[in-house]
Amino acid sequence: MLPWNVELAGRLDRAVISSDLLRDNPLGDPYERPVWVYLPPGYDDDTDTRYPTVYVIQGLTGHLGMWANRSPFQQPFIETADAVFASGRAPGCVVVYVDAWTAYGGSQFVDSPGTGAYHSYLCDEVVPWVDARYRTINHRDSRAISGKSSGGFGAMITPMLRPDLFGALATHAGDTLYEYCYLSEFPKAARALRDHDHDILRWWEDFRSRTPFSRPGDQSLLVALVSSACFSADPDGTPRLPFDPRTGVLRPEIWQRWLDWDPVRMVDRYADAVRSLRAVWIDAGTRDEWYLDLGAEAFRAELGRVGVPDERIHLELFDGGHGGIDHRYPLALAWLAQRLAR
Amino acid sequence: MLPWNVELAGRLDRAVISSDLLRDNPLGDPYERPVWVYLPPGYDDDTDTRYPTVYVIQGLTGHLGMWANRSPFQQPFIETADAVFASGRAPGCVVVYVDAWTAYGGSQFVDSPGTGAYHSYLCDEVVPWVDARYRTINHRDSRAISGKSSGGFGAMITPMLRPDLFGALATHAGDTLYEYCYLSEFPKAARALRDHDHDILRWWEDFRSRTPFSRPGDQSLLVALVSSACFSADPDGTPRLPFDPRTGVLRPEIWQRWLDWDPVRMVDRYADAVRSLRAVWIDAGTRDEWYLDLGAEAFRAELGRVGVPDERIHLELFDGGHGGIDHRYPLALAWLAQRLAR
Amino acid sequence: MLPWNVELAGRLDRAVISSDLLRDNPLGDPYERPVWVYLPPGYDDDTDTRYPTVYVIQGLTGHLGMWANRSPFQQPFIETADAVFASGRAPGCVVVYVDAWTAYGGSQFVDSPGTGAYHSYLCDEVVPWVDARYRTINHRDSRAISGKSSGGFGAMITPMLRPDLFGALATHAGDTLYEYCYLSEFPKAARALRDHDHDILRWWEDFRSRTPFSRPGDQSLLVALVSSACFSADPDGTPRLPFDPRTGVLRPEIWQRWLDWDPVRMVDRYADAVRSLRAVWIDAGTRDEWYLDLGAEAFRAELGRVGVPDERIHLELFDGGHGGIDHRYPLALAWLAQRLAR
Amino acid sequence: MLPWNVELAGRLDRAVISSDLLRDNPLGDPYERPVWVYLPPGYDDDTDTRYPTVYVIQGLTGHLGMWANRSPFQQPFIETADAVFASGRAPGCVVVYVDAWTAYGGSQFVDSPGTGAYHSYLCDEVVPWVDARYRTINHRDSRAISGKSSGGFGAMITPMLRPDLFGALATHAGDTLYEYCYLSEFPKAARALRDHDHDILRWWEDFRSRTPFSRPGDQSLLVALVSSACFSADPDGTPRLPFDPRTGVLRPEIWQRWLDWDPVRMVDRYADAVRSLRAVWIDAGTRDEWYLDLGAEAFRAELGRVGVPDERIHLELFDGGHGGIDHRYPLALAWLAQRLAR
Repeated sequence: MLPWNVELAGRLDRAVISSDLLRDNPLGDPYERPVWVYLPPGYDDDTDTRYPTVYVIQGLTGHLGMWANRSPFQQPFIETADAVFASGRAPGCVVVYVDAWTAYGGSQFVDSPGTGAYHSYLCDEVVPWVDARYRTINHRDSRAISGKSSGGFGAMITPMLRPDLFGALATHAGDTLYEYCYLSEFPKAARALRDHDHDILRWWEDFRSRTPFSRPGDQSLLVALVSSACFSADPDGTPRLPFDPRTGVLRPEIWQRWLDWDPVRMVDRYADAVRSLRAVWIDAGTRDEWYLDLGAEAFRAELGRVGVPDERIHLELFDGGHGGIDHRYPLALAWLAQRLAR
Repeated sequence: MLPWNVELAGRLDRAVISSDLLRDNPLGDPYERPVWVYLPPGYDDDTDTRYPTVYVIQGLTGHLGMWANRSPFQQPFIETADAVFASGRAPGCVVVYVDAWTAYGGSQFVDSPGTGAYHSYLCDEVVPWVDARYRTINHRDSRAISGKSSGGFGAMITPMLRPDLFGALATHAGDTLYEYCYLSEFPKAARALRDHDHDILRWWEDFRSRTPFSRPGDQSLLVALVSSACFSADPDGTPRLPFDPRTGVLRPEIWQRWLDWDPVRMVDRYADAVRSLRAVWIDAGTRDEWYLDLGAEAFRAELGRVGVPDERIHLELFDGGHGGIDHRYPLALAWLAQRLAR
Repeated sequence: MLPWNVELAGRLDRAVISSDLLRDNPLGDPYERPVWVYLPPGYDDDTDTRYPTVYVIQGLTGHLGMWANRSPFQQPFIETADAVFASGRAPGCVVVYVDAWTAYGGSQFVDSPGTGAYHSYLCDEVVPWVDARYRTINHRDSRAISGKSSGGFGAMITPMLRPDLFGALATHAGDTLYEYCYLSEFPKAARALRDHDHDILRWWEDFRSRTPFSRPGDQSLLVALVSSACFSADPDGTPRLPFDPRTGVLRPEIWQRWLDWDPVRMVDRYADAVRSLRAVWIDAGTRDEWYLDLGAEAFRAELGRVGVPDERIHLELFDGGHGGIDHRYPLALAWLAQRLAR
Repeated sequence: MLPWNVELAGRLDRAVISSDLLRDNPLGDPYERPVWVYLPPGYDDDTDTRYPTVYVIQGLTGHLGMWANRSPFQQPFIETADAVFASGRAPGCVVVYVDAWTAYGGSQFVDSPGTGAYHSYLCDEVVPWVDARYRTINHRDSRAISGKSSGGFGAMITPMLRPDLFGALATHAGDTLYEYCYLSEFPKAARALRDHDHDILRWWEDFRSRTPFSRPGDQSLLVALVSSACFSADPDGTPRLPFDPRTGVLRPEIWQRWLDWDPVRMVDRYADAVRSLRAVWIDAGTRDEWYLDLGAEAFRAELGRVGVPDERIHLELFDGGHGGIDHRYPLALAWLAQRLAR
């Protein structure tokens, strides 16, 4: 294996979508967005075949360009995904890499006055754009969404909100059980705010002026800021923290706005959508630093409770933490590719 | 300083109380309890003087005998407390070391069907026993309680429940803000229960059969067990966990029973008692692993909100973690000794 | 099990030895030293029987009084040692707890102008004192020495230096393979000295004036100071660091003085003494923070190389770290008790 | 700042060098090597100007392609380097990104029978190739080399070996003081080999078959393997470990072969070359996990000792660890660019 140069068996198109929905977004982020569309081997040969589509989204602080990052002794997902199809492990799919980055590091794939209409951008602009340009099977039973961490969150909620578009999903260490994955960051964030007059926007100003993630609490504060902007922004876009920035005491009504976005808690409200899913891949590492393995079990238990048949669910807890789990992605991709309608 | 042998300027009596209230306690723990009573220098000389009393309680897993433990380069509290009075830093007090240990490692100083009537033991048996035998000033304005960690919790709640007995307190890194100090243990506990059929009593059986604290999760599970036994036991004494042992999902009604014992949340319910306090010492390390520095700030903010005057409160956040903070105890003792009525 | 009060089946005498050898020791430490002598069950009944003796020494920063410290859910060694004999697991021995503490936290059980003649004190004062007062079998085949960490080091070297006195030993996580257990502390020490003008005596002054072990590097600097005082002091007692305090660069000639005290390296020089040992217990945790499990294997390999028969050696690597391994001590004590000559 | 797409003010050429020296390298790695050559703003406008050259090399496990990796909230070095010149902070240089990756993760930029002739490849193939194709100033006073970690090591030793080619260097957290940066890995490596029959090549086979860096000890073993292949390979290419793989005991003669490559120790041997350097940038984080801040101070002290004038040296210890220090690279680049002869 050469580490620095690999030929794909399929083909990767790199394009830009000019979004109407993201124009005038509150953070002033670009509305021209990159999108990468992968066509599997054979796509250009047999021009009659149409393919299921798997949408792939990034985790927090991730943007599209990072899919091309290279690591020691490992291939990036673009190549391991290509190998899934090139090796014949699964029938070909179109794979669409979507960008939903914001200046705060992410959008959580929701529509929010704090960040922009990223959920709608994905569903109402990217999906039609892809279907108009590529030989996809334009049907929810042939369309899946997949991601890790915040991307796993996005993969869980998007089909709940839009079962007309997505009929399958894969979540790797997806954010859920917020009392463990999010709440544990709040005291660290509150502590770190002592150096910033208990004002997260002062911290943000400081953060942007220096080497990022070089001070204790940076990670916790970034999570608090971006999620407040996504889950609990005021109508004018101001992010509202779910805790008192001095004492850390929870603000119940704001915290509830976050909890309303907790996938484990959403299943019940979106039970019909959830029951319509034909394939759900759930995995997480048993040493996940945000306890998303427990989140995975809790999410899976809720699926069962509302009546999703066992055979449509794959739950797997593997030996690992939250980072360095890219090797899981092609496993889920192959599993989805075998289950999407053709 | 000799590390292995020190003469006290005062005197330490070691006695045993035969408790009626602890007889037939549910864990079969001894009802004959050690108590140590320290008399300050001069106590035996001037037999007319009566003294204020400071009750000292242990943290979780602590029992009376540990007050005699010795550490490198440091004197135990018994000696640094003695030095407070011997040096003239503060006028003399009687200091009473109370034992409230249970087979689970502690009682949280509450009455519970899961452990026993340790709150009542302290208030209705130890206090009268001391006042009957020593020249104390038997008045709530001359009686304080002090402790660290779970002992700090006990020091916060006991005067709320019994303002007739206690008029002052000192809490060092006392347990409060349960969403941070307790909740963060639950996912660790749930994970560790995977090896024990998701049954905490099976874990307990295993724990008792081997080297304690030798496996990951032991600490979290012990905290979950003892606090369930103290805060959320069934009437028959069975401890009820506040979370699903498989998924970690909170059980709201049981978790609420814990929250009802959160000092920050209790202040409002016991506002009259709290307002009657003449001296409240609150401290914690800014690196406390259970974020009890935030708890300290939140508790202090609640005191202010219900109307405790600033001059009766000492809040101090110091550079330190949760462990190794014994040097804080004599500071609070001296401060209390100066404020108790004589 | 009561945690706070236990009756021994045997008897523990607490005495003081007035040492000639420690009088005028360079650190001004007391020359009157406590010694505890444990007599097994039956000692007072059958006054004809004489017993083998096991000398027990402390690790770094430990002093005699700490043997009485109590821990949660565990009995101290004094009691678990008593249980070895009370239960009949092994025939009775006299167990002697020796103090070799210094103002720097320890003596490494060697004679040094930097600390005092602690090796000679143990061999030429404590041993005769015990044999004169108790019904011991005064023969090297009936005398063992045992310890943990620095105490394990002492247990390895004392029989090498004085095979006339000691014929058996037990080392738990004993210091050896200095390139791993000691050398790794030097860069931490050098870094911490940046705040003290690169002068370890200035650090020492600071350390003594505040809460011990409250600053990063305290542990590493203490180890560097005490071991320099023991292994590489000038004739006038000044401790000489084996590394440049600014750059951390090794000073080979001083470092060699330390290496000359590395048990793994000493075996060859003391091969005759080592070959005369009738029982050698070696253990360490596989997660020992100072890699003393590798040290244990290296020491054991050296024993084999110079011809100690396998049946006289017990090597055991157990699952554990450096701390919290007190449960290992009674295992070695029973093993030694079965092998000492009677 | 757009995170996913940036226009350079200069220009980056991506080429491939077909190396004679790497043909038939022992690991079967490619002999066709990528090389990236950056031309500063204005290079294409004023075709008479010739430029100094800065060669940039990767750290261990790094290969050329990783320079294009993107991180959250930060630009990659290619862009921050471009900004150095675009902003006018320093006069233009040609910047050459060299690849010296091997199947083991690196070459340490030396010639070795264990990996290949990477030092010679850099000096005798890449440098002439660049000078033949670009308007460089082909003189050692106008040529620098720069790198981080193992790349910092390469930057320190290459000008010592080839002062005819390189007259300046920058080392960020460069490997040196091997008793701290390397030796501390050996016990971890020896421990991890317990699962592989004490045979590093068995571990290597296992490592290549699974998710890399997913087991404890992987990092330490990789460092041991690659450095043995580079510093202490047999003539037939077999890597020889500097420690006994069972006990961790040092093998002095092999360890000495490593020490002979320690930059701190090499300065004396290459004193003339070192004295000829016109600019030496040395930095490291004060929390560097491999203590390369001490290494930096030790290297700087040696430079001074052999007579390099202070004004040619920049030593800076900054608040930071070993990772996440990319923001240091453009600082050194600007400093070098101002000092190279034009």
